[in-house]
Amino acid sequence: MSSSSSDQVITCKAAVAWGAGEPLVIEQVQVSPPQPMEIRVKVVCTSLCRSDLTAWESQAIFPRIFGHEASGIVESVGQGVDEFKEGDHVLTLFSGECMRCRQCTSGKSNMCQVLGLERKGVMHSDQMTRFSVNGNPIYHYCAVSSFSEYTVVHSGCAVKISPTVPLEKICVLSCGVAAGLGAAWNIADVSKGSTVVIFGLGTVGLSVAQGAKLRGASRIIGVDKNPEKSEKAKAFGVTEFINLNSCNEPIQQVINRITDGGADYSFECIGDTEMITTALQSCCDGWGLTVTLGVPKVKPVISAHYGLFLTGRTLRGSMFGGWKPKSDLPSLVDMYLKKEINIDEYITHNLAFDNINEAFNLMREGKCLRCVMHMPK
Amino acid sequence: MSSSSSDQVITCKAAVAWGAGEPLVIEQVQVSPPQPMEIRVKVVCTSLCRSDLTAWESQAIFPRIFGHEASGIVESVGQGVDEFKEGDHVLTLFSGECMRCRQCTSGKSNMCQVLGLERKGVMHSDQMTRFSVNGNPIYHYCAVSSFSEYTVVHSGCAVKISPTVPLEKICVLSCGVAAGLGAAWNIADVSKGSTVVIFGLGTVGLSVAQGAKLRGASRIIGVDKNPEKSEKAKAFGVTEFINLNSCNEPIQQVINRITDGGADYSFECIGDTEMITTALQSCCDGWGLTVTLGVPKVKPVISAHYGLFLTGRTLRGSMFGGWKPKSDLPSLVDMYLKKEINIDEYITHNLAFDNINEAFNLMREGKCLRCVMHMPK
Ligand SMILES: [Zn+2]
Ligand SMILES: [Zn+2]
Ligand SMILES: [Zn+2]
Ligand SMILES: [Zn+2]
Repeated sequence: MSSSSSDQVITCKAAVAWGAGEPLVIEQVQVSPPQPMEIRVKVVCTSLCRSDLTAWESQAIFPRIFGHEASGIVESVGQGVDEFKEGDHVLTLFSGECMRCRQCTSGKSNMCQVLGLERKGVMHSDQMTRFSVNGNPIYHYCAVSSFSEYTVVHSGCAVKISPTVPLEKICVLSCGVAAGLGAAWNIADVSKGSTVVIFGLGTVGLSVAQGAKLRGASRIIGVDKNPEKSEKAKAFGVTEFINLNSCNEPIQQVINRITDGGADYSFECIGDTEMITTALQSCCDGWGLTVTLGVPKVKPVISAHYGLFLTGRTLRGSMFGGWKPKSDLPSLVDMYLKKEINIDEYITHNLAFDNINEAFNLMREGKCLRCVMHMPK
Repeated sequence: MSSSSSDQVITCKAAVAWGAGEPLVIEQVQVSPPQPMEIRVKVVCTSLCRSDLTAWESQAIFPRIFGHEASGIVESVGQGVDEFKEGDHVLTLFSGECMRCRQCTSGKSNMCQVLGLERKGVMHSDQMTRFSVNGNPIYHYCAVSSFSEYTVVHSGCAVKISPTVPLEKICVLSCGVAAGLGAAWNIADVSKGSTVVIFGLGTVGLSVAQGAKLRGASRIIGVDKNPEKSEKAKAFGVTEFINLNSCNEPIQQVINRITDGGADYSFECIGDTEMITTALQSCCDGWGLTVTLGVPKVKPVISAHYGLFLTGRTLRGSMFGGWKPKSDLPSLVDMYLKKEINIDEYITHNLAFDNINEAFNLMREGKCLRCVMHMPK
C-alpha cells in the first residue's frame, strides 16, 4: 500500500466482481486520489446488503466493486472539501445530499437530484471511475463501493460521526437498518396501538418491526417464507409470525381475517411487485397504508385493482426511509449511542474481509441478517 | 299520487331505465313506505352525475332508477327514525354514515361498512327494493335513486339542511362538487404556492381546481380532450389548459418539462387506469402525490413502475373527497351560503324532469357540467 496523500494513487485490496454471480476476487486495485469535492476513505467495516447481492446477480455493469454500507476514516480530501479532514470518522451514503437542488432544499425529500442513486457505476461528478486494475477501470456501485480497503466518495455521500461510535457496528446503519426505521417513522408514521404487517423479515423488515414497536404498535405481524426467522423476529418486536410457505389460503385473506378487515399499515420489504399488491390487500379500507421499500428483482411493474385505492388505501414508496442522509443520520447515531435503538442484534456474522464470498453465500441462503466484514487493520 | 303517510304506498312518476343504454321511460312507479330507520323523500331537484351515465351504459342490473345527487323534503319517516321528521329539507348521500362501525368510529374514514356504496341495486337494510311497476321490482342505484318524484333512503344516507338553502342549487353538492373539493382539501391537502395538474375537467375535476385555488395553489394545470373546457376551467381556477388531443408528445413529458420535474399534486378525474399511471409520471420525485377519484369504465387495474414509488411518489384514492357524508356536509353547505365556495357555476342546464333523457345526451356529448332536473311542483 502506498503512502496516503491526496494526490497519490493508493494500491490496496478490493473484492472485485468480474461477472454476474461469479465469486468475488480479492485483487490489488489502484484507487485514484479524490477529485474536487470528493473524499478518500479508509474503510474500517462494511456490511453486505441485499441490494449488493441483487445487483451482483443481475446487473450488467462489470467489473465492479460492490458494497454500500460502510464505516471508515477519511484518508484524504479533494479540492474544495472543508466539511471533512483527514482522520474524520464517517459513514458512507449510497444516496447523497447536495443541500442545494429542488429536492434537497424542499425540506420534504431525500431524493437529491445531484447525488441521488447512481446507477451507471461511476462517480457523480465526472461519470468516471476511481478504481482500476492494471489500468482498466473497475466500476463503482451506488457511488460507494466499500468492498475495498480504500474508496473515493463524493463529500455529499458521507456523514461525519463521532470517534466514540463503534465503527464495527455502526456500518449497518448506513442503509438497511435506517431504511426500515425510517419507513416506520417518517413514511408511515406508525401510530400507537396500531396493527402492522411486514412482508419479508430480513434486516429491513426487522427494522420496520423495531420502528413500529418503538412507536407503540400493538400488533406486529411478520410474514416470511423462512420459519427460522420467527424467533429473531420476536426479539425485534414481531408479535405474530406467519410462515408464508405453510399458508393454505392467500396470505391477504389470513391477514384480513385475523385483523378483522385488514391492518393499519403494511410494509413490503421483499422486493416483489406481486407482494405489493398483496400488501395493499392486507391493509384496511379507509386509511390502510402500504409502504413499499423493496427493489424488485424481476417484474418491475406494480398492478393493483383501482378499488383498493377508491376504498381509501394509499401506496407510498420509501427510499432510505425518507431520511435526508446527511441531515438526519447523526440523530440516528445518537439514538444508538443512547441505546434507544438496537443495531447490534442485526449483526449475525463478523468476517474478515478476505472471506467476503462467505457473506454472499450466507445471504443467498437466508442464513444471516448482516455480515460485517472487517478490513485488515 | 296517493296521500302522504308512512304506511302507504305512493304512486308517482319516475324515470325507469329498462336496459343498458336505452332511453329512460317516465313511468308510474309504486314507492313503498319507509322501513325501520328509513325515510321517504319528495325529491325537489336532482342532477345527473357521470356515475349514473356509466352505470346506465354498462351495468347489468335492470330495470333500475338512477340518480344520486338530490335535494328534497322528507315526506314520511320509518320506525325508529328520530333524526328526521316530515318536512325536513335534506340532501341524499350515495354513501352513508352509520356512526357505529369500525370505519365510522375511527374518525379518519368515510368508508362506512354498513351504509357504504351499495352495488346490488337494493336497500341496505333488507336487500330489497322499494320501487315497483305493476308489482315487479325496480332496482335502486347507490341506495338513492333520485330520478323519481319520491324515493326511500336509509336515514344514514341523508343529511338535514336548513330550509334557507336553495334546493335547486345544493343538489350538486351531494356528489361531484363535494368529491372534488374534498380531494383537494382532505385527501391531498394542497398547499399554498404548489403546482397542481388535473386530468379531466368535468364537474369533479373543476371542483378539484376550485379547491386547489382556494388553498392558494399557484399553478393549476388542467388537461382535457375537449378544448371547449378551457374557458370554463379558467373560471374555476385553472391557470393553464392543455388540450390532450393536440399534444404531440406524451402529456407526462409536457407536464414534467413545464413544471421542471413534475407537479406537486396530480389528480385523475377521468376514470381511466392508464391515466392514473400518467398522473403518477406527471408528479415530482420526493413528494409527488397522485390522487385518483375516477371510477374506471374499462380496465380496472392500475399498473405503474415501482420506481415511481421508490423515488418518493404516493398514490391515494379519494372516495367522496374523504368527507364523512353526514358529519361533514353541513359545513360545506355553510360555506356555500357564505359564498366561500361557488357551486352555481357548475349548473350549466336546468331541465324539467320529463326531459331527463336530454341530460343523458348532453353528458354523453360532453356538453354540460351539471344538468339539474326539476321535479313537478
Ligand atoms: Zn442497502
Ligand atoms: Zn440535492
Ligand atoms: Zn359506519
Ligand atoms: Zn356521483
